Amino acid sequence: MRHVTMRFDGSRLELLDQRLLPGKVEYFRAGSYRDVVYAIKEMVVRGAPAIGAAAAYGLCLAAVEYRHLPTGEFQQKFAVALAELAATRPTAVNLVWALKRLESIADAFTGAPADLAGVLEAEADAIARQDAEANRAMGQHGNEVIPQGARILTICNTGSLATVEWGTALGVVRTAHSDGKDIHVFACETRPRLQGASLTMFELTEEQIPATLVVDSVAATLMNQGKVDVVLVGADRIAANGDTANKIGTFMLSELAARFDIPFYVVAPLSTIDDNVRDGSEIVIEERSGREVTHIQGVLVTPPGVDVYNPAFDVTPAENITGIITEQGILRPPLDREIARVKGGQ
Amino acid sequence: MRHVTMRFDGSRLELLDQRLLPGKVEYFRAGSYRDVVYAIKEMVVRGAPAIGAAAAYGLCLAAVEYRHLPTGEFQQKFAVALAELAATRPTAVNLVWALKRLESIADAFTGAPADLAGVLEAEADAIARQDAEANRAMGQHGNEVIPQGARILTICNTGSLATVEWGTALGVVRTAHSDGKDIHVFACETRPRLQGASLTMFELTEEQIPATLVVDSVAATLMNQGKVDVVLVGADRIAANGDTANKIGTFMLSELAARFDIPFYVVAPLSTIDDNVRDGSEIVIEERSGREVTHIQGVLVTPPGVDVYNPAFDVTPAENITGIITEQGILRPPLDREIARVKGGQ
Repeated sequence: MRHVTMRFDGSRLELLDQRLLPGKVEYFRAGSYRDVVYAIKEMVVRGAPAIGAAAAYGLCLAAVEYRHLPTGEFQQKFAVALAELAATRPTAVNLVWALKRLESIADAFTGAPADLAGVLEAEADAIARQDAEANRAMGQHGNEVIPQGARILTICNTGSLATVEWGTALGVVRTAHSDGKDIHVFACETRPRLQGASLTMFELTEEQIPATLVVDSVAATLMNQGKVDVVLVGADRIAANGDTANKIGTFMLSELAARFDIPFYVVAPLSTIDDNVRDGSEIVIEERSGREVTHIQGVLVTPPGVDVYNPAFDVTPAENITGIITEQGILRPPLDREIARVKGGQ
Repeated sequence: MRHVTMRFDGSRLELLDQRLLPGKVEYFRAGSYRDVVYAIKEMVVRGAPAIGAAAAYGLCLAAVEYRHLPTGEFQQKFAVALAELAATRPTAVNLVWALKRLESIADAFTGAPADLAGVLEAEADAIARQDAEANRAMGQHGNEVIPQGARILTICNTGSLATVEWGTALGVVRTAHSDGKDIHVFACETRPRLQGASLTMFELTEEQIPATLVVDSVAATLMNQGKVDVVLVGADRIAANGDTANKIGTFMLSELAARFDIPFYVVAPLSTIDDNVRDGSEIVIEERSGREVTHIQGVLVTPPGVDVYNPAFDVTPAENITGIITEQGILRPPLDREIARVKGGQ
């Protein structure tokens, strides 16, 4: 982790611009919540936990911007900022979860608007710190299911870039590697945005963890060849029954893992579990612009104007999941009961 | 089919340069067999049947080039040309099959070297004509399994660009569309070379066949949503037991189709069946440069020097195949027995 994913100094949020990696290491400077809205929509920052923390800091920026307004006007503008931040991306629940934490503090706050920003910043810092701690804990729990010499298949980026630091699925990889296990990672490139090729390979290369890049459809061949011991993926939202929305391609991997009897683990903090949705059918799946598929490096590779179906996520049914690795340990089937237990305890 | 895939005038083979489609419609002019070797290796022309016909014309160019040499020297140089053409790509069997047809004519030929080229050209023309006829026949047979209103999933390009004309899997699509069936095609983009996005979408757009482009991993979601009625794919080599080597991603589709009980058809002429190989494990799978994955439009999207596993093909086991649509009808399981029957009759 030579580069931090985000840093906040009270008046500016700096985000490692993930659109430019690995070619350029540059920070995007967000001086207002509107900049943060842009950064999340355009995927300057991505990954469910990272989006949650970034949105929290974005709301702090709104509180700073409006601090000199009278209370009524402040509240109005603050509510607009909150709504805009919440609407940036629909699937990852951490976004709404983090904003709600700040909202309830703002709601309970009785002081002058000028004093709210500091209180919110402390809460955003807590969210960030807790995410980092949760990732370390997930790394420890997840490490238990990683055998010595394991060949691990993963998709998208779930590392320090997708979180505040360390990572979820890639955090488990990091812990297993730190623990001296002789692991090898197969990273799916993850079309259309190529987070596997650009971000995951960037992190693995920096950490000198042995890794091989494949196009997504090679996963089936690797499994069939007996080259995959375990599949580790992240999550954007987990329903009460364990159904898990994650990067498009995850469902495909889960079906193949089930077919080839390969353990399939979701790695996510409890904040990713949304027990307000009963099952995957209730999770809103973001559809992104077809341009992500038709244009490659800005060049049109298809005939002009073709129809594209570009869902950013898919839903893996609970029955395909061997376990959910959380900061409180590994939830194993029946997942609905386990989720009710841990969420009830929160 | 506004554009022909290849045309030969006795001294030059013109190939529609598929590396430039759909942005540019340009012909690559091969004046020697070496140019044809280059064109096949670099995928100016691709698709198993098209490669077979192009290689046959390439060998004609060698016969033209060496026509003034004494017989012994002619035979030596001709054999080198044949070996170089045969070695361009390892997986598609049509290449070797077409060259063998010309080789046996050359072996039996007793005239002067100067007269051989014309005889070979007639045989290459026959290969091309028979391929076109076989495609039309496959279209007719295949059309029988395409319901009115069918939503068809396919991968790679198997249309007129992959053959001499009409196409194999996309030929069936073409026939069903011509027949007035209200079909819709889902085209997998087909990483890493994007033949689905660029070539298949080009053909479907030209023919005004309704189509939607998806990244390869969306196939699982489409099937799970009940949006796919049938999967049609081409083939590069079919073993005696029915195991089929085809574009990487085909095996993934076949596993998912089996899982979701969706008919999965291979569409290929009998020349693609190689009954010299017993099963898929004996088929050589070409591994291509990792640069196809790491570089997109010439831009490096990964850290430099990463390890890549880039097989160009995978093997779909016979048990995942509902039927093989050939010019002689649809072969249905047990495929090994059916293949023995049709190949025995040849």
